Amino acid sequence: MKQVLIDTKSKTYKVFIDARLRFTIGTLLESIVTQPVSSVFVVTDSVVAPLYLDDVVGSFEQKLPIHTEVIPSGEASKSFSVYENVMTKALECGLDRKSVIVALGGGVVGDLAGFVAATYMRGIRFVQVPTTLLAHDSSVGGKVAINHPLGKNMVGSFHQPEAVFYDTETLYSLPEKEWRSGFAEVIKHGFIRDQRLLSWLQKEVSSFNDIPVQIVNDLLEQSLAVKANIVAEDETESSVRAYLNFGHTLAHAIESELGYGEVTHGEAVAIGMIYALKLSEKTFKVDLEVEKYEQWFQLLGYKTQIPSHLQPVQLLKKMQSDKKAEAGTIRMVLLRELEEAILLEIPPNSIKELLDEQLEVE
Amino acid sequence: MKQVLIDTKSKTYKVFIDARLRFTIGTLLESIVTQPVSSVFVVTDSVVAPLYLDDVVGSFEQKLPIHTEVIPSGEASKSFSVYENVMTKALECGLDRKSVIVALGGGVVGDLAGFVAATYMRGIRFVQVPTTLLAHDSSVGGKVAINHPLGKNMVGSFHQPEAVFYDTETLYSLPEKEWRSGFAEVIKHGFIRDQRLLSWLQKEVSSFNDIPVQIVNDLLEQSLAVKANIVAEDETESSVRAYLNFGHTLAHAIESELGYGEVTHGEAVAIGMIYALKLSEKTFKVDLEVEKYEQWFQLLGYKTQIPSHLQPVQLLKKMQSDKKAEAGTIRMVLLRELEEAILLEIPPNSIKELLDEQLEVE
Repeated sequence: MKQVLIDTKSKTYKVFIDARLRFTIGTLLESIVTQPVSSVFVVTDSVVAPLYLDDVVGSFEQKLPIHTEVIPSGEASKSFSVYENVMTKALECGLDRKSVIVALGGGVVGDLAGFVAATYMRGIRFVQVPTTLLAHDSSVGGKVAINHPLGKNMVGSFHQPEAVFYDTETLYSLPEKEWRSGFAEVIKHGFIRDQRLLSWLQKEVSSFNDIPVQIVNDLLEQSLAVKANIVAEDETESSVRAYLNFGHTLAHAIESELGYGEVTHGEAVAIGMIYALKLSEKTFKVDLEVEKYEQWFQLLGYKTQIPSHLQPVQLLKKMQSDKKAEAGTIRMVLLRELEEAILLEIPPNSIKELLDEQLEVE
Repeated sequence: MKQVLIDTKSKTYKVFIDARLRFTIGTLLESIVTQPVSSVFVVTDSVVAPLYLDDVVGSFEQKLPIHTEVIPSGEASKSFSVYENVMTKALECGLDRKSVIVALGGGVVGDLAGFVAATYMRGIRFVQVPTTLLAHDSSVGGKVAINHPLGKNMVGSFHQPEAVFYDTETLYSLPEKEWRSGFAEVIKHGFIRDQRLLSWLQKEVSSFNDIPVQIVNDLLEQSLAVKANIVAEDETESSVRAYLNFGHTLAHAIESELGYGEVTHGEAVAIGMIYALKLSEKTFKVDLEVEKYEQWFQLLGYKTQIPSHLQPVQLLKKMQSDKKAEAGTIRMVLLRELEEAILLEIPPNSIKELLDEQLEVE
């Protein structure tokens, strides 16, 4: 079993990585908590529930009260109404301040159940049990949130989990599209902090069909080590944590313009990273070998150009109303070189110019 | 201008106390922030808005964007739907991470606007501008929350304000009932931590008609000093902060059984304190002079007995489902003697017995 230590200002906890970990979550949880657990509330979604809910519930001691809640699968569940429903269920089940919430699923479940944990009776403990590759990123670092019709993740908190239990076997029930989506965040960690990881990935991964579980365990460990490193330095995104936004400023705009679900998060981040690399080359007059990465991305099935039916001027507008924006300016993460991220305010006309260049030609 | 320093683990800030302070809030805020303010969002209610909103808005520099939102007055506004509405307004106004929310009003406004600040983009700054005596307690310490139909303050966070601006002149627009409600929390602080305050109050305050503003400034300063002392020791209620719950276990049950609004919070707390004093005398076989306090309470217009139409068995049930309860047990704050609070698990039959004794006889 691999372990990555997450050492933030407000809490220190571990990510446990191993195939078939879901069968021992109850025992592991018991071994890590310092305060007794009065009851457990497993929140999962309609896709994950039939696959893994019984395994997780079965991993707990029979005498501990266990309640479960299944939310509809998909981003639409990160809503005020599902949030309120899960709160109601938690109260009806009689959860108290010693209860623990288990978030079993992808990023949507983790974000929603984490926000419930952050705000139920002003905060109770929770653990993340990610079942997607993409969630490796969101399950660590304590960012929890729901969406507002006017913007993604606009309502949320920082609330660190007690632990993250990563059963890599569960990833093998994911469709290829989901592997691709999650892998983009792994690549991102390479770009901003770990060249060695980036080179290793290019050597080991040229398709998403049957990556050996050994490789998956390794890449998760390394990718999470980057994340751990960054949130240890900056838990609440006042400095270096912003670097994790590499590729995301344009990605959020693309997702929002296309409508969530039309493109996966990672697919949008891939386009955003190529954009950010190109902008970095222009800005700092350096050669980051964008073409090489573009080819690798394409080999892995990513699109690297902005879909032709999107309007650059609309994307620009969305980028200006990003959560990280201040008073309409656009601040983006660029690379001076590999591993050297920097947060920079970019003039709108430079943004727009490059959007036009990267637009797919029909 | 009086100042009380609140020094918690997560933040250090001041309570400023003075008559007519509302006219200088903008200037004061500017002097205390360490990060620039991009815009201001004043949240207030329909009773306070016509009285003081213009004064507060006028206290800010003209070039700073100021937005306002008026919610309906009353406890019903601490709901999911008002929370969502205020979030929507905040997004529509384009608040960003450098914006500051001003909570102008009583405890309802403070709790709601504070919870919005705690969760807007994962947390932005806010200041409390209490306009009631009761809010002197809730405005300090960072507890923010909304209600759920299944329980009061069940959804919330800990989020400390940047400052508390207490304009004591605004208290003079309060009806006597509201003075009485707030004063109960002042008395509570005396009981659990400051005998001297308690004696001084008995000497100085025998009615709520025209207490001189000098006395009000003094009693706020002393009462807040107790609160400051406690939250400095324990920000998130893992130990001594629970003492602030003195009188509240029964009070919450009474409020909930009567329906919120039928009795003020402080009126319920007064009954709850007499109950807790009596239970303390029984439990520790000490003489706390309950009769003396009962007489003073009655002189001030408090009821000290449980309204006769309430059912002790129902109250007991509510006390067992309190947020502080764990797995159905009742934990109450008692006094070994004045200033010596202790949190104790009490057997349900002892609770019930004393409820019967303190029930008003028709």
